[in-house]
Amino acid sequence: MFHGIYTPIVTPFKRDEAIDYGKMQRNLEKWGKTDLDGIVVLGSNGEFVYLSHEEKLDLVKFTIDHFNRDKKIIVGTTYESTKETIRFSKEVADLGADGVLVLPPHYYKGGMKEALLYQYFIDVAEECPIPLMIYNMPGNTGINLSSSLIAKLSKHPNIVGIKDTSGNIVQLSEIGRDADKDFAVFAGNAGYLLPALTVGARGATLALANILPEDCCRLVALFKEGKIEEAKELQLKILEINHLVTSGFGVPALKVALDLLDYDGGEVRRPLQALSMDKIQLVEDALKRYGAIK
Amino acid sequence: MFHGIYTPIVTPFKRDEAIDYGKMQRNLEKWGKTDLDGIVVLGSNGEFVYLSHEEKLDLVKFTIDHFNRDKKIIVGTTYESTKETIRFSKEVADLGADGVLVLPPHYYKGGMKEALLYQYFIDVAEECPIPLMIYNMPGNTGINLSSSLIAKLSKHPNIVGIKDTSGNIVQLSEIGRDADKDFAVFAGNAGYLLPALTVGARGATLALANILPEDCCRLVALFKEGKIEEAKELQLKILEINHLVTSGFGVPALKVALDLLDYDGGEVRRPLQALSMDKIQLVEDALKRYGAIK
Amino acid sequence: MFHGIYTPIVTPFKRDEAIDYGKMQRNLEKWGKTDLDGIVVLGSNGEFVYLSHEEKLDLVKFTIDHFNRDKKIIVGTTYESTKETIRFSKEVADLGADGVLVLPPHYYKGGMKEALLYQYFIDVAEECPIPLMIYNMPGNTGINLSSSLIAKLSKHPNIVGIKDTSGNIVQLSEIGRDADKDFAVFAGNAGYLLPALTVGARGATLALANILPEDCCRLVALFKEGKIEEAKELQLKILEINHLVTSGFGVPALKVALDLLDYDGGEVRRPLQALSMDKIQLVEDALKRYGAIK
Amino acid sequence: MFHGIYTPIVTPFKRDEAIDYGKMQRNLEKWGKTDLDGIVVLGSNGEFVYLSHEEKLDLVKFTIDHFNRDKKIIVGTTYESTKETIRFSKEVADLGADGVLVLPPHYYKGGMKEALLYQYFIDVAEECPIPLMIYNMPGNTGINLSSSLIAKLSKHPNIVGIKDTSGNIVQLSEIGRDADKDFAVFAGNAGYLLPALTVGARGATLALANILPEDCCRLVALFKEGKIEEAKELQLKILEINHLVTSGFGVPALKVALDLLDYDGGEVRRPLQALSMDKIQLVEDALKRYGAIK
Repeated sequence: MFHGIYTPIVTPFKRDEAIDYGKMQRNLEKWGKTDLDGIVVLGSNGEFVYLSHEEKLDLVKFTIDHFNRDKKIIVGTTYESTKETIRFSKEVADLGADGVLVLPPHYYKGGMKEALLYQYFIDVAEECPIPLMIYNMPGNTGINLSSSLIAKLSKHPNIVGIKDTSGNIVQLSEIGRDADKDFAVFAGNAGYLLPALTVGARGATLALANILPEDCCRLVALFKEGKIEEAKELQLKILEINHLVTSGFGVPALKVALDLLDYDGGEVRRPLQALSMDKIQLVEDALKRYGAIK
Repeated sequence: MFHGIYTPIVTPFKRDEAIDYGKMQRNLEKWGKTDLDGIVVLGSNGEFVYLSHEEKLDLVKFTIDHFNRDKKIIVGTTYESTKETIRFSKEVADLGADGVLVLPPHYYKGGMKEALLYQYFIDVAEECPIPLMIYNMPGNTGINLSSSLIAKLSKHPNIVGIKDTSGNIVQLSEIGRDADKDFAVFAGNAGYLLPALTVGARGATLALANILPEDCCRLVALFKEGKIEEAKELQLKILEINHLVTSGFGVPALKVALDLLDYDGGEVRRPLQALSMDKIQLVEDALKRYGAIK
Repeated sequence: MFHGIYTPIVTPFKRDEAIDYGKMQRNLEKWGKTDLDGIVVLGSNGEFVYLSHEEKLDLVKFTIDHFNRDKKIIVGTTYESTKETIRFSKEVADLGADGVLVLPPHYYKGGMKEALLYQYFIDVAEECPIPLMIYNMPGNTGINLSSSLIAKLSKHPNIVGIKDTSGNIVQLSEIGRDADKDFAVFAGNAGYLLPALTVGARGATLALANILPEDCCRLVALFKEGKIEEAKELQLKILEINHLVTSGFGVPALKVALDLLDYDGGEVRRPLQALSMDKIQLVEDALKRYGAIK
Repeated sequence: MFHGIYTPIVTPFKRDEAIDYGKMQRNLEKWGKTDLDGIVVLGSNGEFVYLSHEEKLDLVKFTIDHFNRDKKIIVGTTYESTKETIRFSKEVADLGADGVLVLPPHYYKGGMKEALLYQYFIDVAEECPIPLMIYNMPGNTGINLSSSLIAKLSKHPNIVGIKDTSGNIVQLSEIGRDADKDFAVFAGNAGYLLPALTVGARGATLALANILPEDCCRLVALFKEGKIEEAKELQLKILEINHLVTSGFGVPALKVALDLLDYDGGEVRRPLQALSMDKIQLVEDALKRYGAIK
């Protein structure tokens, strides 16, 4: 079902924190002309946790209306409650989304045992009209989904893949080994794209692909062509800027990088804060060293 | 402003997951006749993360209409975004709440630096028409608010206290030492109520007070009367059942205990699951050993 | 068996990293004249991990020869292997020590299950000719000994107490509730001495008592006399300097503080490094604010 | 300097916990005939923490006398103190070892700042007569050595490589990118051998190579020949048994597997405990599924 490189797109805001649809449209048009296989709306990089339900619906509608429909659109539909996640998944299916990306519920960390998490995903998958991709993101949720849980969930016909942002390459390998044959394992961060491909990942959903979509796609191509040494060089080359726009300085840095690369990052929404001048400089320097700007 | 024993009340659901206002009303009437100083609506034990915004407003309205108005009502108004937290805080102030209880934003754990968290609370406190109490709950949020951050925030005239559920008694002592003189330090769990009182806590917000409100109040009274040995005996006595209904089995166990004690726990909302029969038995046995039921 | 205030004494080194027995002797004489109930040799503050077996034996011998024999001497005899811990415990018993303080083995963290840890302590206790005190120090070992494990171990006639440095006041309360009646629960850090006493601790082994032995003893006395408010004032007062010489800057700061207070801290052994000038100043300032120096 | 596949050999004990040199000799002879590039004596799998200094010296001497001298012998010489690590490193150099493998000191976790760790390794490297390999093993030490620290240390002419058992493939990639050109990056666990090779690892030190040395070597060969798909199949195939003999059941399981494969595992030393019968069965079943035994 899903394969290749996706990017979890940012949500540009205006100074008054309203969604900046002008910038949104321009970005969508640009990404639509790249080699990307698709995008994820309302992912972690889309600041989905800061949007009201109404804003989310508007944003999904707008995206579906303005993005290249030869590519896929996956929507992050996570809510803490099962019923709200189901409701929103149905809504985005009606709007025309190709799939949903769903985090485990995670507020009551101590109570989120595997049996409960299993049931949550099954309940959502049962009622969701479009394919469901699991989103494992322990850095933000504080909860890791084990490879054995994922393998069990992969048996459900409507659970078609996982975006694993744990960074645990052994876990990712085990999923590749144990999950259903058609299950799509996606790397969740460009820091380990090549290693993930070597152990069976079928694609990746990468914040970095917001700003360097072609290079992310090229790394996959090099791997497929067996050009491992070149793939390795590219993998090592992207590490620095990837670190800055993800675990380093996060979404504010990703938005700065978009601005520097003729995309439109826009503002962040509070509590996030704009990047300080010295950190903007670090991002700019890294992009220069990379060769993405002069 | 705030002192004494509060309880973060549960939200009873029906089998179809709708809020059970009949049970809600009966509980409110019973708590209203106890020695409790107040209640917290939409706290962690109220499954606030599983309620839609509309449900939250209805629940707050209902609580204010049906609870003994000689006691205080504090409302959990946390959203991940600053603007939604402000908006909801204003709404509950309009409805007549006495204060708000606010968690730090916590989804982007790596990005929640102290300067950002400080600004979040200041921004909310500035616009919130009623007193704000900070809610430190690292077990659920994955983020701890340091004593130095709390001390700084305590200088703001509208930030009046903290519910600290970290369980770190040194941190709680440091807050008592460094915070503004009028700042109310509240223990966040009955497991360390007496230790907290000895280092300056002015009260507590306790899940346990849902089911044993009078004993929680009595422990405070014993401490104030200098009956330390008796207070210690009571402190040790409550540990077992307190553990079961909090970090042990969580909200589902608290609801079972309410049912056993002639309150109305009601159902949980998914993804939470009803307690298994053997765990129900453990709760019942603990309540018997405690002497709360025969 | 054991009760009151103990201090885990530092091991002063010369510039060439040899043990400075002159300084050692002077400290022992001074501590011997205080109200301390005893000392711990080869505890964490004694840099025991940096001493060879021969040095350890010499140091224990020297301490027993030069310390006030009206007070107790407990020796840290932990080795990772059961047999070496037993051998060393026998050796120090022969030298005249009053008890041993034993950490759990902790190198293979993943493998140290409770059944294994239980067996380790039982095996050592069985062959150790003098009373054994358990040393729970998760900050250094990465392993926490649960209250239920401690309660089980407390049934062994030769396991007489625990120094709990976890800082988990609920766990400490549970041990007080569940352990054998004669089992001595000791707080392991002065940061929570008063809270520990209120839930049943019988004493404490405190790094802080290296430098402020009388105040540590006075806090216990105040508690026993029911002067809770005064005890609280003293508890809050000691927090700052206690933090600096323990989790703040560690043993190097404790040695600096000893020097400032007319004890003899001496040098640390590598890899530990002498405190930088600015940190020395912080320690000095804190001692001035405390009133310990002018 | 170092490259290829090494195995950290186990230390077989007799029932009375003495080192079983007969079994040791037989293993050494067998490993000596494999494709292994070398062995590590006194690594984590060698239970080095349970051996006295005298035993360590004897064991190193014996190994050097009985192992195929066309292959390398690296010795784990870690002590918590700088001076003891230096002393032991000199001793094993005198005995004829080819290199030393050194963990960071880790008892005082809070105090082990990067500047201190840097100095520790530099101090040891300066005085160690043979090449030093850094051993990053956060699972056991609780301390991770960052890629930037490793890069700095790699500039020292006598620090020639790292065994990284963190499992963090991004960190391993960063080391490959930033370290000195001749610096040898070794994977520390077979669970991510192929991913490590793709980002620049020059070899690996693998517990699994105790029992499956040829397959570990074959995986490297497949990678070098560009047979990525075959390498991937082998990588996925070894995951199960590798997990059981490392993070799953640890050294006791590794020794059982050795016995099953006509090596001589021998007993473990206390506090380690022999594997239970049901776990032995799990190991045996996994080896059968693997095809290593019938």
